[in-house]
Amino acid sequence: MADAPDPMHVDATAALVRFAAQCRWQDLPETVRHEARRSLMNFFAVALAPAQDRTLDIALRTYSRFSARAEATVIGRGARVDMLTAAALNAMAANVYDFDDTHHPTIIHPTAPVAPAVFALAECAPMRGDDLLLAFVLGVEACCRIGNAMSPEHYARGWHITSTCGVFGSALATGKCLGLNEQALTWALASAAVQAGGLVETLGTMAKSVSVGNAARNGMLSALLAQEGFDGPPRALEGERGYLRVAATTPDVASIAQDLGVRWELLNNTYKPYPCGVVLNPVIEACLDLSRDARIVSAGTQAIRAVHLTGHPLLRQRTDRPGVRTGRQSQVSAQHAVAVALHRGRAGLDEFSDPAVADPVLRALGERVQFCDDDTVSVDAVTVRIEMADGATVVRQIDAAQGSRARPLSDAALEDKLRTLCRHGGSGVAAEPLIDSIWQLEYSEDAARTIRLAAR
Amino acid sequence: MADAPDPMHVDATAALVRFAAQCRWQDLPETVRHEARRSLMNFFAVALAPAQDRTLDIALRTYSRFSARAEATVIGRGARVDMLTAAALNAMAANVYDFDDTHHPTIIHPTAPVAPAVFALAECAPMRGDDLLLAFVLGVEACCRIGNAMSPEHYARGWHITSTCGVFGSALATGKCLGLNEQALTWALASAAVQAGGLVETLGTMAKSVSVGNAARNGMLSALLAQEGFDGPPRALEGERGYLRVAATTPDVASIAQDLGVRWELLNNTYKPYPCGVVLNPVIEACLDLSRDARIVSAGTQAIRAVHLTGHPLLRQRTDRPGVRTGRQSQVSAQHAVAVALHRGRAGLDEFSDPAVADPVLRALGERVQFCDDDTVSVDAVTVRIEMADGATVVRQIDAAQGSRARPLSDAALEDKLRTLCRHGGSGVAAEPLIDSIWQLEYSEDAARTIRLAAR
Repeated sequence: MADAPDPMHVDATAALVRFAAQCRWQDLPETVRHEARRSLMNFFAVALAPAQDRTLDIALRTYSRFSARAEATVIGRGARVDMLTAAALNAMAANVYDFDDTHHPTIIHPTAPVAPAVFALAECAPMRGDDLLLAFVLGVEACCRIGNAMSPEHYARGWHITSTCGVFGSALATGKCLGLNEQALTWALASAAVQAGGLVETLGTMAKSVSVGNAARNGMLSALLAQEGFDGPPRALEGERGYLRVAATTPDVASIAQDLGVRWELLNNTYKPYPCGVVLNPVIEACLDLSRDARIVSAGTQAIRAVHLTGHPLLRQRTDRPGVRTGRQSQVSAQHAVAVALHRGRAGLDEFSDPAVADPVLRALGERVQFCDDDTVSVDAVTVRIEMADGATVVRQIDAAQGSRARPLSDAALEDKLRTLCRHGGSGVAAEPLIDSIWQLEYSEDAARTIRLAAR
Repeated sequence: MADAPDPMHVDATAALVRFAAQCRWQDLPETVRHEARRSLMNFFAVALAPAQDRTLDIALRTYSRFSARAEATVIGRGARVDMLTAAALNAMAANVYDFDDTHHPTIIHPTAPVAPAVFALAECAPMRGDDLLLAFVLGVEACCRIGNAMSPEHYARGWHITSTCGVFGSALATGKCLGLNEQALTWALASAAVQAGGLVETLGTMAKSVSVGNAARNGMLSALLAQEGFDGPPRALEGERGYLRVAATTPDVASIAQDLGVRWELLNNTYKPYPCGVVLNPVIEACLDLSRDARIVSAGTQAIRAVHLTGHPLLRQRTDRPGVRTGRQSQVSAQHAVAVALHRGRAGLDEFSDPAVADPVLRALGERVQFCDDDTVSVDAVTVRIEMADGATVVRQIDAAQGSRARPLSDAALEDKLRTLCRHGGSGVAAEPLIDSIWQLEYSEDAARTIRLAAR
């Protein structure tokens, strides 16, 4: 019988928990260990940015009313709350600006739901740095493999995949930290499965943050319940009415168990240089470079007659948004991105804010953007051709944008991202000790020290 | 243009929140008001039963670690916890034995996610009884209408519909109690939509209770967030990637807004006389009656040669389960139900427990059950024909079982259900003052008094 195994009979849940229960830090390649540190660098960077953000203000105020005690850090804030509440708020903070990491091809932001759980637990139960990093890597692995098995249908249908898959990552990571055995890890995934939720419909609103926070919080809760003997079915993922079959039509169940310990999903993680949809990365990079071109500097952007973007059709489909009205919308508007990068020579959170969008100079410049579809061009590439009023043209071509898998952000760029966003957030957190602590986390006897450095 | 309105353009969310915001107690027919009291009678009955149950023990222990303060009652227990935690635990308690109410045709258990939310809030913010009842009715209306719009596909696919739809009911009911306006109610439904979860795969395990508890807790949280200005999209239900379209293939969006205030879903609610799948109701009723038949009493059940069940094919399909091993499984086993009802003349929680299933006399009697499919028979009906060893036959026919919509449980039967389950739970709660308080709730200046009577 050379038939492929019946996918109904792949024990995906069992394979995943067995791997998680047995995997040790020394089993991880150095590439994976370093990517874990890089993911955490990016995590603290983005979580420090909304230290004075209204979404987080409201969430902190409301969630704090239901916090049992001051035991865990809220990143970038003075408040301390119980560990479940901290996990929720820190996950929200990491993701609220959609400036966090991106796993390919699922488009999951994997660190937001997983890292807050293990750090919150570390503040309540002493934990070594390598143990935290190992649990984090395994949580990301679970989250992204479950996402892979349902992609692209699940997200395309409207499930907010970071939230829905994130809860499994948080449950498995927390369970690993707690030293749960395979049976209890199976139960933790079952209680996670009934808590998976989140909708693309809510992107651009505060409601999105609720499900991202839940993913971290409820994954932890699932593991804590399992530790106490709270049971669940054995095949919560792949069972006939398990999560995979309910939330996707034809899940690739077998993929979840394939090459565990050989292929690491964390190595498919990327980090954004700009707080925008990733298809805008090459456009912004080209325009920032053009903003320093002598011909444009001397003539000024008012002398630009047209900006032609030649890129993959997805660029136009996702970002042809003239006349946007909010900072949030501007994050997926090529017109705004081109204008602000050319005119201000910067592309940070301030440049994709409500005040920036209201700038009439940027609006006028954005109106001069034109798209030329070319499906032979990679989505990581673009050619930007500027026509000046005097007839001159200036061109920049980007073959693979910074932040793509082909040209990942350097360690130094990730450090700078943390410095910049820490300053933007205005929390008063000192960036350098935090940066040092993240790079050295593997050797720390007290993993919680790192997150404590991320609060006032 | 006589075309039906494009269902993509039915403003279901807006219609629902407008109705909820405007509806007053005096707009409710007396039939609806009374059904609300009956639903609450059944709610307290079933929630008092697991006062010493292990699922609730573990949940209480784990959830209490994250309770902010002792402000709200845990039914049947001595503990007091914060209102979100109380809502979760009381919803779990009401549903853990699947002995709670059943809305037709969705099979939602609507009271478990909604009533705990409004009672928990009433303990923290003074509330009149009629206000609580009104909010409860509106929450059930939202929950069941959303369920109708996705039925039967949603549940058949594997979504635990009580959990997934319950969170909307809790959000709307809590929002009504808080006096939220239409905008805030819309936001509350959006934050609820990202928290809808729960899987049929977990039925029969503790994990199921997590999602039922979440429905009550997270609906409350959604309304509390909305009260603080936490926003969401306007069409979280019917939007292109709103909950209805993501969690069902062809939702009947328009039905949500049809006949609001005219047709009341609470009137489609039913209450179980026995802790079993509803298709067993007529079988148990017939067998309880037969257990008192002189021929069977005198000869004893060991003299029964065969028990023939003639019923709708669904009866066999759902309940032909010989040799079950757990009390939980016995709740959907015709073999066990017939045996225990005939032999013991009772059909309460004790009769569908692990010890009852282990009784060899019941096992032997159950083996003599035979099914005869007859698709002309209603699912509410059955004919039970017993062949005795001496060749005599005894027959009972039930045309519409107690607990069906045609023959609802009487008010007195609901009171008795509360007395019985209160005694079964062993909490020491006094049933009579609680029963009186539920019937009088409409006139109470302090709705919280009722739930305080349901604890030691």
